[in-house]
Amino acid sequence: MYGAFSAVVTALRDEVGSPYDLIPLGMMRYGEGGVVGWGSLCGAINGSSAAITLTAGEDYKKLVNELAGWYTQAAFPSDASNGYATRHEFLVKEYKSDKALAQSVSGSTLCHVSVTKWCLASGVAAGTPERAERCARLAGDVAAHAVELLNANADGKFKPAYSAPAAARSCQACHFKGKDFKAGQFTGGKENCTSCHEPHKL
Amino acid sequence: MYGAFSAVVTALRDEVGSPYDLIPLGMMRYGEGGVVGWGSLCGAINGSSAAITLTAGEDYKKLVNELAGWYTQAAFPSDASNGYATRHEFLVKEYKSDKALAQSVSGSTLCHVSVTKWCLASGVAAGTPERAERCARLAGDVAAHAVELLNANADGKFKPAYSAPAAARSCQACHFKGKDFKAGQFTGGKENCTSCHEPHKL
Repeated sequence: MYGAFSAVVTALRDEVGSPYDLIPLGMMRYGEGGVVGWGSLCGAINGSSAAITLTAGEDYKKLVNELAGWYTQAAFPSDASNGYATRHEFLVKEYKSDKALAQSVSGSTLCHVSVTKWCLASGVAAGTPERAERCARLAGDVAAHAVELLNANADGKFKPAYSAPAAARSCQACHFKGKDFKAGQFTGGKENCTSCHEPHKL
Repeated sequence: MYGAFSAVVTALRDEVGSPYDLIPLGMMRYGEGGVVGWGSLCGAINGSSAAITLTAGEDYKKLVNELAGWYTQAAFPSDASNGYATRHEFLVKEYKSDKALAQSVSGSTLCHVSVTKWCLASGVAAGTPERAERCARLAGDVAAHAVELLNANADGKFKPAYSAPAAARSCQACHFKGKDFKAGQFTGGKENCTSCHEPHKL
């Protein structure tokens, strides 16, 4: 969370100055590991969403929704991030790993799911420097896409591209935030339901 | 997120002033409905955690961990919140509902799980004023507990009280953020695993 938020807000502070130089970046430290290691919301989404909302006013709704949806379908770390690392172009003194890392798609906004999918795809354990490097590259990827969305929106060129998977659309035809309990409207959310639930027969 | 964050920071602004009067509260709007309706991390945890981290320095780790754990085991809305509502003691002009609402325990930090469990416990659909009121009371409950934790910590009296459920401790004996992939250390997180996963035999 801190990484993605500070990436965007530090750039604004350096280019624009006030009020971005008044934001206490350290406030976002809690988002690490999906809230102090709980594996809940990925901190890269959390921090990027805060930066979007700080800068985009009411437009945050469509931009954050697009960012979250894009995250669930993107392969991380991106080819761009892997390239920066292998060419030593990231602005760090020391690399946790400078190899091109395996890529995975999370299908979820959750840190736990995102990390586990990557570990299974790469064969690398969760408590390794390579996994930490993977999450650092992911944070850069997500912050960069947040800025792309903000810039497109500022130029009047933002178009939502995210489309929910068919399985989720099928579930959410009945299960949505409506007023009819008996019809199944006792829930809400936009995640891919079958990531946690078994489908049931109608 | 906005509700819980602004509850704490507005009180600090009024009592302490700077630097709390410089924080743009609206930055936290995205956390609604677990990030613009995605049903991910509950916004009350997200906003309260930001407020804790803003004020507690490095102590945020133990305090946010305690808040998240407490959230998963507490019955919301609390008796205190239900009492404020039935006696019209909340500082609002209009109530979405002024009835004592059914209580539920989420077992999770996720908005989706927390809302669904409450709807199933109450028999009330998710798109109703009663559900919105339930989440508003919950936001107050979580912000209030965040302040209790901050005050206890400031007084040197904070003691962690959260203990993970036995099912999660059993899973996490093998599945944790370690370095041995083959031993099952390809994951991380502190949620109750059986909320989404079926247990497997060893």
